[in-house]
Amino acid sequence: MKQNKYDESSFFANYSQMARSTGGLDEAGEWSFFRKMLPKLEGASVLDLGCGFGWHCRYVREQQARSVIGVDLSSNMLARAREMTDDEQIEYRQQAIEDIHFSASEFDIVISSLALHYVESLGDLFRKVHHCLTPGGAFVFSVEHPVFTALAGQDWHYGAEGEKLHWPLDNYHREDLRQSRFLEHDVVKYHRTISTYINALIESGFELKQLSELKPTDELLGSHSAWQEEMRRPMFLLVSAEKK
Amino acid sequence: MKQNKYDESSFFANYSQMARSTGGLDEAGEWSFFRKMLPKLEGASVLDLGCGFGWHCRYVREQQARSVIGVDLSSNMLARAREMTDDEQIEYRQQAIEDIHFSASEFDIVISSLALHYVESLGDLFRKVHHCLTPGGAFVFSVEHPVFTALAGQDWHYGAEGEKLHWPLDNYHREDLRQSRFLEHDVVKYHRTISTYINALIESGFELKQLSELKPTDELLGSHSAWQEEMRRPMFLLVSAEKK
Repeated sequence: MKQNKYDESSFFANYSQMARSTGGLDEAGEWSFFRKMLPKLEGASVLDLGCGFGWHCRYVREQQARSVIGVDLSSNMLARAREMTDDEQIEYRQQAIEDIHFSASEFDIVISSLALHYVESLGDLFRKVHHCLTPGGAFVFSVEHPVFTALAGQDWHYGAEGEKLHWPLDNYHREDLRQSRFLEHDVVKYHRTISTYINALIESGFELKQLSELKPTDELLGSHSAWQEEMRRPMFLLVSAEKK
Repeated sequence: MKQNKYDESSFFANYSQMARSTGGLDEAGEWSFFRKMLPKLEGASVLDLGCGFGWHCRYVREQQARSVIGVDLSSNMLARAREMTDDEQIEYRQQAIEDIHFSASEFDIVISSLALHYVESLGDLFRKVHHCLTPGGAFVFSVEHPVFTALAGQDWHYGAEGEKLHWPLDNYHREDLRQSRFLEHDVVKYHRTISTYINALIESGFELKQLSELKPTDELLGSHSAWQEEMRRPMFLLVSAEKK
């Protein structure tokens, strides 16, 4: 199923009001971690799967990437992305992530931010990414953490006083779709275990380079009390891999 | 801290009565998964870290491994292990896992079953394992899953009727020791995140080959109702890596 929630006007309106939509990457909690996992961007040809408003595409160009292609299914998102740049080395394509067809070794780096948990057939996509990367090329992506997607409720277990007692985990090994709520809408996500993400990468011909589950740094813990909560359960999984 | 619970008589007595102690590998739920992650054993020189009663040592010799050294700190465990074999190609050494010092490239395969969550300094140990493996050699180990070790209680969250509502997760990113209970005794375990295990391996010079979180197969689900519970949360993490 190729989901296109962002072309539903009320969902898009809600998403457009999120801090990460108005303020960009610095408002995205995972960005400082994701950025450190990126290889050298200067001179690189980059593909961004699920580019949304194009924040990552513009960032990689600021870092002197040679060119970048952003792929997204949502015309709403791409219209906004196009409004925000006149850079001729950024190309936006309206397409489902699952439908990409690029030439062999067309990119040095493929990135994807919080999009792959919407993709049903992960192995097929990983093989396509592997195909269009140069040997030694980097694939860096983030997804909602399996601990976070296992239960469709995606919320804490609360006590009688409304306090957050712990994060409830269940159905971890039931890998299929989850009907979740996001921005007051029903959204379908595909829950997969960590081992499924990692083994699918390895089986597609990648070598794993680094994992991150966004362990808050002392600096982050000091700056925002909200980060204390992130010590309690992992919300995102960030993965860096290299084409063998 | 080098823990030696198995030389405390009442703990040892309780452990000796567990199904996996009397019945061996086939009584250990993770064994069918662990076995499949092992490389070809025939002709290999093998090291087993935390060998306990020596079940794995005897298995690898049955599979025609050339020789095997089993390391364990517990004299109780090793006495029992020695009673169970007269195989001259199995050597047992009483030593803390952390204290191993082997020559470079001494082993083709290093295994460790449910021992490394008792080791404080994981990076140091991984570097020692890397040192004593031949290039291309395999390191296969199991630990209690980080989702299972995060809370010292290591138990379900129950409802009013005593039913298992879900698995409670908290303090996931607080990586330090946990005072747990096991076999009616206090036991110290080191909780680490999945990313810490995996990144420490990669930083020590290993290439990750496979992860397993023991997703029950249909066959297992059909054979024992206890496996239904294993669908709900991961209890073990199995890792296969190769020395680069």
